[in-house]
Amino acid sequence: MDAAALFTRSAAVGRRRSREGSGFTQWWDQRHASARFDVRPVPFAGIDGWRFEQSTGNLRHESGRFFSVEGVRYRTGDGSWHTQPIINQPEVGILGLLVKEFDGVLHCLMQAKFEPGNLNTRQISPTVQATRSNFARVHRGGATPFVEYFRDPERGRVLVDVLQSEQGAWFWQKRNRNIVVQVDEDVPLHDDFRWLSVHELHCLLQVDDLVNMDTRTVLACMPLMPAEPRSGAQPGPFTDALLRSYGDPGAPGAAALHTLDEVRSWLTGERASCTWESRMIPLAAVTGWTRTSEEVADDERRRFRIMGVQVTAEGREVAQWSQPLLGTRGTGLSVFLVRSIGGVAHLLVRARPEPGLMGLVELGPTVQVEPCADLAAALDGVPYAAHACTADRGRTHFDTVLSEEGGRFHHARNRYRIIEVGDDVPLDVAGGFCWLTVAQMTALLRHGNYLNIEARSLLACVHTIW
Amino acid sequence: MDAAALFTRSAAVGRRRSREGSGFTQWWDQRHASARFDVRPVPFAGIDGWRFEQSTGNLRHESGRFFSVEGVRYRTGDGSWHTQPIINQPEVGILGLLVKEFDGVLHCLMQAKFEPGNLNTRQISPTVQATRSNFARVHRGGATPFVEYFRDPERGRVLVDVLQSEQGAWFWQKRNRNIVVQVDEDVPLHDDFRWLSVHELHCLLQVDDLVNMDTRTVLACMPLMPAEPRSGAQPGPFTDALLRSYGDPGAPGAAALHTLDEVRSWLTGERASCTWESRMIPLAAVTGWTRTSEEVADDERRRFRIMGVQVTAEGREVAQWSQPLLGTRGTGLSVFLVRSIGGVAHLLVRARPEPGLMGLVELGPTVQVEPCADLAAALDGVPYAAHACTADRGRTHFDTVLSEEGGRFHHARNRYRIIEVGDDVPLDVAGGFCWLTVAQMTALLRHGNYLNIEARSLLACVHTIW
Repeated sequence: MDAAALFTRSAAVGRRRSREGSGFTQWWDQRHASARFDVRPVPFAGIDGWRFEQSTGNLRHESGRFFSVEGVRYRTGDGSWHTQPIINQPEVGILGLLVKEFDGVLHCLMQAKFEPGNLNTRQISPTVQATRSNFARVHRGGATPFVEYFRDPERGRVLVDVLQSEQGAWFWQKRNRNIVVQVDEDVPLHDDFRWLSVHELHCLLQVDDLVNMDTRTVLACMPLMPAEPRSGAQPGPFTDALLRSYGDPGAPGAAALHTLDEVRSWLTGERASCTWESRMIPLAAVTGWTRTSEEVADDERRRFRIMGVQVTAEGREVAQWSQPLLGTRGTGLSVFLVRSIGGVAHLLVRARPEPGLMGLVELGPTVQVEPCADLAAALDGVPYAAHACTADRGRTHFDTVLSEEGGRFHHARNRYRIIEVGDDVPLDVAGGFCWLTVAQMTALLRHGNYLNIEARSLLACVHTIW
Repeated sequence: MDAAALFTRSAAVGRRRSREGSGFTQWWDQRHASARFDVRPVPFAGIDGWRFEQSTGNLRHESGRFFSVEGVRYRTGDGSWHTQPIINQPEVGILGLLVKEFDGVLHCLMQAKFEPGNLNTRQISPTVQATRSNFARVHRGGATPFVEYFRDPERGRVLVDVLQSEQGAWFWQKRNRNIVVQVDEDVPLHDDFRWLSVHELHCLLQVDDLVNMDTRTVLACMPLMPAEPRSGAQPGPFTDALLRSYGDPGAPGAAALHTLDEVRSWLTGERASCTWESRMIPLAAVTGWTRTSEEVADDERRRFRIMGVQVTAEGREVAQWSQPLLGTRGTGLSVFLVRSIGGVAHLLVRARPEPGLMGLVELGPTVQVEPCADLAAALDGVPYAAHACTADRGRTHFDTVLSEEGGRFHHARNRYRIIEVGDDVPLDVAGGFCWLTVAQMTALLRHGNYLNIEARSLLACVHTIW
C-alpha cells in the first residue's frame, strides 16, 4: 500500500471508530498535572551563556550553537530598503513523526511537549522535534527520545522526507527535515507520548492552540487521497468539490484549472520578476529598533521584540534554563479562499516574497498577515482582505487560532481560516495569485521551497473539513 | 505531443537527416569574420563605473546593478573556516531558448554570442542570455533580441521553465530562469542567430569550447525519451543500457536501483547532516587573498583571481565597455561514472556542498574539481578519482573541454568526461554518493536546486552518446 492510501485509511477509518473519545482528554490532563513549568521574562543579562557580541551586536550562545539573533536588510518591490532582527539557525532540525498501524489504522506517536514560548505550556508535537544541537546534547541534557528512528531511517519505512522552510519574516533561510517513518516493531512508550490516529489529529486541529506548528507542517506533507466523505462531514456540493480536489488533477472529474507544469512555470516567472533582495547584517546595524536591557523592539512597537525567558521545568531534557525568544504582538491572520471550479475545489495561493526565505518567494495563503499590534491597519490594501475577514459562518469552513513554534517564539499566534467563495472571486485573479487543487499542493510538497509554513499549516487544516 | 516526444523527435530524426552538414560551418565562419573583438586586461582603475566601496572593499558598479564582487566565509565538514571572494548577482537572469518545428523536426534558435571571457570570442548560446540589468538596458545599449518571447511566454508554448543554480564555488546563490518556448509563427532572424536541431547541438557539444554553459544547462532541462539508438550510435550493451536509462524508472525493463522517493529521501538526509555553514562578508574581510591594482588573488595562486578587462566589440549591444571578470587558473574536471545495473545505465551522483549554493548541497558529478593551478594535487584523496582519470578509451564515452560562462569568467574551462565502469565500482557506494538513471535526473530537473551546473552540463553531454 502506498503512503497516500495508508494515511487516508487512518483518516477515514479512524473517524468511523470514533477513537477520539478513547482517553485522549484524560491523558492530556495527566500530562498537565505531571509537571510544573514556570516561565518568566528576564533581562538579557540573566540569560545564561548568551551575550551580545561586541563587534556585531549579534545575540549568540557562548558555544556558537543553537541559534543567534542577527539583522537582515532587504529591498522590497517598491525599491525601499528595510532592516529588522532575524533568527539565524543554520542547522537543519528534525521534525520526525513515527507512525504505526494498530488494527489496520495508522497512528502517529505524538508528544505532549512543553516549549517556553507556548502560552499554555504543552502542545501536541511530533515524536521528535529537535535541532542538531539538541540531539547532539550541546546543553548536556537528556537524550532526545526516539531520535534514532530519524537519524537512521532504515529502521523503518520512510513515507515522507523533505526539507521545508519556516517563517520567512522571522528566520534566516531556516529549514527543517519533515520526516515520517513507519515501523512495525513494538515501541516502548514514555509518559509524554501517545499514539493518535490521523483522524484524531485532524479533530484536535480544530481546538485553539493545541496542535503545534511542527505537527501541522508534517501533517501537511502527508499525501491524502480520500475516496469518500467521512461520516462526520457535512454533505453538500462544497464537500464534494473538496474531495475531488484531492484526486489526480489529470483524472476525469478532478480536472485542475492549470496543469502542474503551468503552475510551476507561473511560479518561476513570479520568482524571476521579483526584485526583492535580502542579506544578513549585524544586529547593531539594524535601524528603527532599540535595544534595552530587556528587549530589542521596533520603535513603533508594531511588530515583535527579542526578549529573554527563564524556564524552570520538570520532565524536559534539563530542569532549568534560560534563552532568548522572539515575542510577537497581537495575532496574525492566514486565510485560504477556496472556490469550486468545474466541481473541483481550488485554493487561491499567493506567490509571496519574505526576507528570510531561501530564494525569497514561496507560495503562501491567499491572505497572510504576520502577528502585529494593529491587524486592521496591516490588512489595509491587501488583496482579498474583505473576503478573508467575512463574518459569514456559512462560508467559513475552518476558523481556529493556532500557535507558532514555542521553542523560538513567545505567544506567537495566527488565526487560520478557510473561506468558501464563489463568483464574487473571478477565476482571472490578481497578479501573483493562482488557483491550485489540494492534490497539486500535495504534489509540490514532495519538494522543499514551494509552500511556506503558513500555507502548510492551512493545508493541514483543509484536511479537517471533509 | 508532449515536450519529451518533441525533443526526442528532433534528436533522432535530425540525425537521420544529417543536417549538421547543412551550412553551420559556413555560417559560423561568417560570424567570426563579421566582427572584431579586442579584449585586454586593465587595472581596476581602468574599469569604467566600477569601484571598490570604501567601507566594505566590495567591487561594485556605480548603478548598484549588474553584479558585485564580495566575500564569503564558510565552514566545511571538518569544522574549519575559509574565506574567498564571491560574485553576488541577486537578479534572476534569463536563459531562454526559442524552438520551432521545421519539417516536423524541432529546431532551437541559437546565437553566435561573443562574451569577453570566452577564449575564442564567440560560442553557441541560447536565444536569450541576459540579466534583468541587461534587458532593462541599464547600460543604455541596444535591446536584447527576442527577449519578449520569455518575458511574456504566453506568446508561445512553454516546454521548460525552471530556476537553476550556477557555480556554487564562484556565485552567491545565483539563479537563472532556464526556459524553452515553442512558437509556430515566423521569427525574423538576425545575422547572429541560426536554427539548429537538437541533434546538431548534440554533435556540436563534442567540439571543445563551442557550445556554451548556458546552452548546456537548458539542453539538460529538456526531457528526452529516446525509443531507439540513433543511426550513428555504436551498438552494444552499453548503448542499450543507456537508452533504457531514459525510460520511466518504474516501467518493466527500465527499473532503477532506487525509487525517486528513495533518492529524494537520501538527499534530504545528506542535506540535513551537512554541517557546512556559509555567509557573505565584505570583500575586505577575506583573508589569504591580496588585492593589487590589477587583481584580487589567492596568495597561493592556486584558485582564481578577480581582474578587469576592456572590451572593444562590433556587433554587440554596445561597442565598448570594461568590466570585472573572475579569471581561473588551469582546467577543472567533471566526470560521471556510468554503470549498467540490471541492464539500465546509472550515473553516480555525489551530494556536494558548495559555499554559494542556496541550501548548500546539490547533486554534482561523481568527480568534480574546480579549475585550479594543480589538478593532480586537487584530485588527491577524491573518491573515484582513478576511475575518473582512466586513459582507457574503450570506457570513455565523452571527453571534451567546455567553457564556463564568458560573461563572468575569464577562460574558465572544465574537462567533461563520461566513463563507463563495471564491477570495479560496486553498487554499495561510498557515503554521499548515489546511482541515478537519466530519467530520474530529468525528473529532478523539473525543479530547481537538485542538480548543480556541472552535473547539468554533463547530463547534456550524455545525450550525445547514443
